[in-house]
Amino acid sequence: MELLIVKDRRIDYDGSEIVSHWAYRNFGILGNSLVVFRGKCGVRVEEMIDIEDLRGSKEIKSDDMVHYIIEVFDLPNVLFASTLQKLFIAKLCEVLGEYGIKTARKGDDIYVDGRKLSISIATVSPVSIKMHIGINVEAKGIPEGVDAIGLKELGITDVEGFMEKTGGALVAEFDKVKRDSLKVRWAQ
Amino acid sequence: MELLIVKDRRIDYDGSEIVSHWAYRNFGILGNSLVVFRGKCGVRVEEMIDIEDLRGSKEIKSDDMVHYIIEVFDLPNVLFASTLQKLFIAKLCEVLGEYGIKTARKGDDIYVDGRKLSISIATVSPVSIKMHIGINVEAKGIPEGVDAIGLKELGITDVEGFMEKTGGALVAEFDKVKRDSLKVRWAQ
Amino acid sequence: MELLIVKDRRIDYDGSEIVSHWAYRNFGILGNSLVVFRGKCGVRVEEMIDIEDLRGSKEIKSDDMVHYIIEVFDLPNVLFASTLQKLFIAKLCEVLGEYGIKTARKGDDIYVDGRKLSISIATVSPVSIKMHIGINVEAKGIPEGVDAIGLKELGITDVEGFMEKTGGALVAEFDKVKRDSLKVRWAQ
Amino acid sequence: MELLIVKDRRIDYDGSEIVSHWAYRNFGILGNSLVVFRGKCGVRVEEMIDIEDLRGSKEIKSDDMVHYIIEVFDLPNVLFASTLQKLFIAKLCEVLGEYGIKTARKGDDIYVDGRKLSISIATVSPVSIKMHIGINVEAKGIPEGVDAIGLKELGITDVEGFMEKTGGALVAEFDKVKRDSLKVRWAQ
Amino acid sequence: MELLIVKDRRIDYDGSEIVSHWAYRNFGILGNSLVVFRGKCGVRVEEMIDIEDLRGSKEIKSDDMVHYIIEVFDLPNVLFASTLQKLFIAKLCEVLGEYGIKTARKGDDIYVDGRKLSISIATVSPVSIKMHIGINVEAKGIPEGVDAIGLKELGITDVEGFMEKTGGALVAEFDKVKRDSLKVRWAQ
Amino acid sequence: MELLIVKDRRIDYDGSEIVSHWAYRNFGILGNSLVVFRGKCGVRVEEMIDIEDLRGSKEIKSDDMVHYIIEVFDLPNVLFASTLQKLFIAKLCEVLGEYGIKTARKGDDIYVDGRKLSISIATVSPVSIKMHIGINVEAKGIPEGVDAIGLKELGITDVEGFMEKTGGALVAEFDKVKRDSLKVRWAQ
Repeated sequence: MELLIVKDRRIDYDGSEIVSHWAYRNFGILGNSLVVFRGKCGVRVEEMIDIEDLRGSKEIKSDDMVHYIIEVFDLPNVLFASTLQKLFIAKLCEVLGEYGIKTARKGDDIYVDGRKLSISIATVSPVSIKMHIGINVEAKGIPEGVDAIGLKELGITDVEGFMEKTGGALVAEFDKVKRDSLKVRWAQ
Repeated sequence: MELLIVKDRRIDYDGSEIVSHWAYRNFGILGNSLVVFRGKCGVRVEEMIDIEDLRGSKEIKSDDMVHYIIEVFDLPNVLFASTLQKLFIAKLCEVLGEYGIKTARKGDDIYVDGRKLSISIATVSPVSIKMHIGINVEAKGIPEGVDAIGLKELGITDVEGFMEKTGGALVAEFDKVKRDSLKVRWAQ
Repeated sequence: MELLIVKDRRIDYDGSEIVSHWAYRNFGILGNSLVVFRGKCGVRVEEMIDIEDLRGSKEIKSDDMVHYIIEVFDLPNVLFASTLQKLFIAKLCEVLGEYGIKTARKGDDIYVDGRKLSISIATVSPVSIKMHIGINVEAKGIPEGVDAIGLKELGITDVEGFMEKTGGALVAEFDKVKRDSLKVRWAQ
Repeated sequence: MELLIVKDRRIDYDGSEIVSHWAYRNFGILGNSLVVFRGKCGVRVEEMIDIEDLRGSKEIKSDDMVHYIIEVFDLPNVLFASTLQKLFIAKLCEVLGEYGIKTARKGDDIYVDGRKLSISIATVSPVSIKMHIGINVEAKGIPEGVDAIGLKELGITDVEGFMEKTGGALVAEFDKVKRDSLKVRWAQ
Repeated sequence: MELLIVKDRRIDYDGSEIVSHWAYRNFGILGNSLVVFRGKCGVRVEEMIDIEDLRGSKEIKSDDMVHYIIEVFDLPNVLFASTLQKLFIAKLCEVLGEYGIKTARKGDDIYVDGRKLSISIATVSPVSIKMHIGINVEAKGIPEGVDAIGLKELGITDVEGFMEKTGGALVAEFDKVKRDSLKVRWAQ
Repeated sequence: MELLIVKDRRIDYDGSEIVSHWAYRNFGILGNSLVVFRGKCGVRVEEMIDIEDLRGSKEIKSDDMVHYIIEVFDLPNVLFASTLQKLFIAKLCEVLGEYGIKTARKGDDIYVDGRKLSISIATVSPVSIKMHIGINVEAKGIPEGVDAIGLKELGITDVEGFMEKTGGALVAEFDKVKRDSLKVRWAQ
């Protein structure tokens, strides 16, 4: 899994990034990829992937987030997508733990002291799985009624450092998962 | 995913449990299953799944472990198996955290203060994925050279309670993963 | 497979129901589903699934039908879709037999005394298989040249009872199919 | 699907026929196949596919049966195997109906007047699906406690004619299923 | 694989042919197909499949080409698509060798004396793999900067004969590939 | 795809190499691999993969061959295995062409002047595809009735150079196939 951390500019996330070959089209990265960037979040209704959100007319927005866009081509299956998503969220919690932050993971959501730190979605395209994870830098511009928190309020002010640390951790996790899958004999 | 916690007796794990339909053959459980039991661990060489262990002539043994045998029929794929395994290990770390125990996860291994608490393997059969996780109750009968630790040394003496708590947590995690996979539209 | 029988209102079928997650979007049903409802049938050309019909410029319409919309997420494969469709049609013939009606099944069509009782289509979305079966309540509004028949002409006037009986039978059939698939060991 | 009806000799079925490439190894038939033959039935315990039967220590035997061995290479999946099996059983019931015999199908079993006419199993090999259907010619040599019936008691004495008629019907059914799967566009 | 060689008219290729069921919609050919025709080539940007070409704003055009449109339904996988594409290109080189022409194959491109003879693309639809191969009849109307060559300059003036010879060779190659895949037992 | 060329010793091929994870078990190579070595060939009957050979009681042997053992984990499918095999054989013919040798490929066989230079088999394990290609160094120890030829008779005496050149060419071919599969958008 190739890692790209975009540092030289902000990119706003509007949901259209959840499309096959987004990393190749935009950055020339072929194959499995994780692109980390920072920017606003405002998902347009027509780009919403979570039908539950659509049914509930939820808004998905934040003024400042670290975004992770993942694509994996090995196995275009939605159960695998959902599993890898939860693992990546768990990994992010582990990294936050290294910062001394105690988190609670509920499926694909990260909470700190009952306040929501992240959003995430995972699905399938006909050729890959696609995933988005967004972590609030600051809890601003959040939909009403959501009690949110951001990295800055947690004392993480070196956002670029956080992007590097987490990006590297997710890629290392995936590579370990892949490697382990190749060293076991099949069972009867 | 159906959960069975075997409390009325000990079952020793020798590796032969990593075979398709083990839960159905032995307990009549049809479909996805998690069977939790307690007993010795001593994997016979011919049952070893991890070729790396085979190549290294490693021993896999422990005098007293909590064992988790998982089978999932949705997607017989080894990358999915490896991903779900890491997620389940992460979940176990989260539950241990609720006990106040600070763990470090390295792929599919759980460490506490640098000492190894668990073993695990995940693979595929032609019709399912199969997984074993074993957690030391006491660090006895461990292969030489492995610095191990067990639940008792960590202050968890209600082993049955631990089996119930972790068993329930893993099943809830899987059910959440599955449910989420069904509520997202596919991406272009 | 979850069953929903819509009794409180009519729903007209125009072909747009053959889309992934239709039952979740419209009724909140997650996962495998069968939704049974009653209403007109008039498939818009742009919704036609059967390319043979498209090539033949066939019309698909009826003034009053019982509709079955099925979605199965286990295996998004068109050969499986086509097989399950024929099985469901055969099952409907068996239920009609319990009403004392002698049918002839030709693939996915049901005939009584040489007159067409039903229409059906089965295909695949990127995440599921989708199926529609429509059974004439009355042979009205049928395309010219089609010698059709309806439930009422066959003496089945309790249409709601028929919807319940057939809906339950199809779900039971699928559940049996699924259960049996889990209790067999694989062959060499 | 290629059809072979063995008329020149009897072949006894012992379960070992449920193995990949059986038709190619024994008759040189490449690809999807249905082989119909007549002979005893006595499944050795080590060949039993149905774990439920194994768990119940059931016997599977009959002195004289028409056997159908099916292999399909398109999709090695056990849910597809189970679905096609039920469709083939339904088709056999339809053909029996043409003989004037009223049957009741319960999943993969055929009953006439509450008496069991058939046995069947369907599973998967790593490269194909495999299926066996057996229909009693006479209800002799049946396990105790099973109330069985055979073709002769139903007035079907031209067993070869029955083998041809049913063999042809099953192949035609499969070919229709396959053909239909190729003429539909995929749905969003 | 069914072969259709269109001789009675020219068909211009604009990229919209790379869509599932194109041969069935346009020629009534069900299942695996190879359609060979002759005509201009001018791929509209919105039909471009190769994202590398899109990124490089490449033009894909030629005034006169022999076109091969292939669809295979057995296995909708893009690695398989890419493999079959290279094999088909290699086969075309072998046929050109029978004409006495020495070619150099670079992946999916055919060169003669360093000049480009062909273009090709292979991808996946949700139900099939799709492939296009185009061979210049004359090196006219080619994008600037491409040093191209055509069949006529190579002395092949009987274009219809070439269409028949190559069409037959590709179908024979696929049928051999398929047949061989059915005669091997699986390995442990 | 990782390449290993064994130069320091001879390895005899007896067919047991056609098993999943052979390269990892024997050489510690994880994932897709090509192992090239030199040695005798004598396939034991119980290791024969080609059922046609088994049915024909063919012998597979040669006193001195260059062997290629390939394993690919991306897609355990026998049609893909058979396609990649033909492509690899075509590539070997192209490399032989660079030596000035004119070959004729018939499916997976290489002929020079009507004499057989090679043997090959491709199949699937539950987790991978496996392939063997063997090229005679000298036409000695060949089964009676086979008109064989070897590299030495073709003037290729630097066998190690040939192993390197062909090994590199096959790996480059696979890597190109894989890379191309990742740069195309999917088609409707």
